[in-house]
Amino acid sequence: MSKALTIEETAAWLKERDNFLILTHRRPDGDTLGSGGALAQGLQEQGKIAYVLSNPETTPRYNQCIEPYLAPEDFVPDYVVTVDTATADLLPTNAAEYLSRISLCIDHHPSNTFYAENTCLYPERAACGEVVFDILMSMTNSISTETATRLYIALTTDTGCFSFSNTTANTLYVASMLIKAGAPNKELNKTLFRTKTRSRIKIEGMLLSGIEFSFDDKVAIACITKDMLNESGADEDDLDDIAAIPCSIEGVSVGIIIRELSTKNICKLSVRTNAPYNARQICEHFDGGGHDLAAGCIIDRAIPEIKKLLHDVLSSSKPPLS
Amino acid sequence: MSKALTIEETAAWLKERDNFLILTHRRPDGDTLGSGGALAQGLQEQGKIAYVLSNPETTPRYNQCIEPYLAPEDFVPDYVVTVDTATADLLPTNAAEYLSRISLCIDHHPSNTFYAENTCLYPERAACGEVVFDILMSMTNSISTETATRLYIALTTDTGCFSFSNTTANTLYVASMLIKAGAPNKELNKTLFRTKTRSRIKIEGMLLSGIEFSFDDKVAIACITKDMLNESGADEDDLDDIAAIPCSIEGVSVGIIIRELSTKNICKLSVRTNAPYNARQICEHFDGGGHDLAAGCIIDRAIPEIKKLLHDVLSSSKPPLS
Repeated sequence: MSKALTIEETAAWLKERDNFLILTHRRPDGDTLGSGGALAQGLQEQGKIAYVLSNPETTPRYNQCIEPYLAPEDFVPDYVVTVDTATADLLPTNAAEYLSRISLCIDHHPSNTFYAENTCLYPERAACGEVVFDILMSMTNSISTETATRLYIALTTDTGCFSFSNTTANTLYVASMLIKAGAPNKELNKTLFRTKTRSRIKIEGMLLSGIEFSFDDKVAIACITKDMLNESGADEDDLDDIAAIPCSIEGVSVGIIIRELSTKNICKLSVRTNAPYNARQICEHFDGGGHDLAAGCIIDRAIPEIKKLLHDVLSSSKPPLS
Repeated sequence: MSKALTIEETAAWLKERDNFLILTHRRPDGDTLGSGGALAQGLQEQGKIAYVLSNPETTPRYNQCIEPYLAPEDFVPDYVVTVDTATADLLPTNAAEYLSRISLCIDHHPSNTFYAENTCLYPERAACGEVVFDILMSMTNSISTETATRLYIALTTDTGCFSFSNTTANTLYVASMLIKAGAPNKELNKTLFRTKTRSRIKIEGMLLSGIEFSFDDKVAIACITKDMLNESGADEDDLDDIAAIPCSIEGVSVGIIIRELSTKNICKLSVRTNAPYNARQICEHFDGGGHDLAAGCIIDRAIPEIKKLLHDVLSSSKPPLS
């Protein structure tokens, strides 16, 4: 049974201990890497030994968050801490040896399974970085520029630069403190939110031009074919958040991206809905899952067939789509 | 000579007076309309008579900011107040009768010309709404949900939902207070920043697909023709912020949109640059003007000719573009 810790209890727990290894989740985003790097930096500033385990899927965009804190090969930690990781099976494969001895989990996911000995969970926070901020403030009542920079990346990544619906008064309050502490918000916003690669511009232009509307324009479907990926040169980073586009169109209730994977006959669906339409229920028809408003699945069919299958599923949607 | 007032002096000045008419600037955005509506609401809550003069160019997007406070036809104010308006000639034509008697200007533009009897100018603030927030807080130490909602629109409009480089720790602090006071940030963000019309999606798709790169990809030029406007059905609201796209592409230093106006032979150029390249200097070649990194001009030529003219001007750019 995992013990639930408050911010203050977590701060005290960390203060009394040393030799930490921090783990981040698979397909790492700015929140897990920013939180991990900030926690390592904050603990090191307090004279402690704290490292982040390398994460094999780290993309160039967020590498700087953890790069200065990567654990030496021979590091043997006394305590293993996870950040922003709801379940143990979301940890990368190189974390396998630590799975049975996770001492502390710091998280904000309501779906957290309490797999760690101690869990500091604040599900009303938009980003795990908000929780790490409070813990570090509780420990030392100050935040360095290095820590603030990583926490700012954590907060903005999980909130779409404060535009997503999870953003709260606390998110913006913490962000204002981070800027006061020296987080270079101008430069970070420009890189993370106001710069697009040429590949992204190309694939987005193709995608926008090819959106198909149905069910009285309440459904918008866009495809990303292997040809489009080849022609644009778009990679995983370039496709970040692209699934949100169809459902962001005025009047659309169900937005779907169908993306060809390794072959034309295996596609990944990303479904976004506006309430009361349920993305997870749509994806469960194809053995997928996710959240009420954002879900996904993989279908072993080609795009034209998938469109027909989708039409059938959406025709029985509740409430009806047309 | 205009008298400079601090926040506190402005609060005291307003407290001592009554019967206000608030003016907003031409081509009104969320900052001027949100600030105007918030000030009227805040003053009305204090038992004062305060109205906003109708602004003929108000778009549906921001109409609700001022609609409840519009001045009756026969209203004769004792004091005229402008918000977010740097110079008197930025006021709409229906404000002509008040130009000679503007008692107070509340603003954040460094270019303010001190045309009012009293000027409350805080040029380091990202939005005029931040100044109005401080004034109202100084008067009553509280903000209603109605006021907070309008100020949140003011702040987010001028900062691109906190992503532009003008966003400061104070902007985010004020925003967190506004959400605490009940500003519905989820709904507002969704409407203002995370929803695109079908017309916008269409014109953006066409624009992205047609971007031309030159000068070692440091220059990106996109065109908006009358045909594209007709085909997409895009209006002024749909084109909001579209000028930022070419210069947001990785590696691009000069981003230009050429837009056909009433005929194919009159075009408006919107130029955005990254330092050290100077958008204003480029536009001054064509009798235009603006800021260092964002400027515009109108050229009485067709698109192909304009591209040639631009090539010549950019060829002599300092530092060289290639």
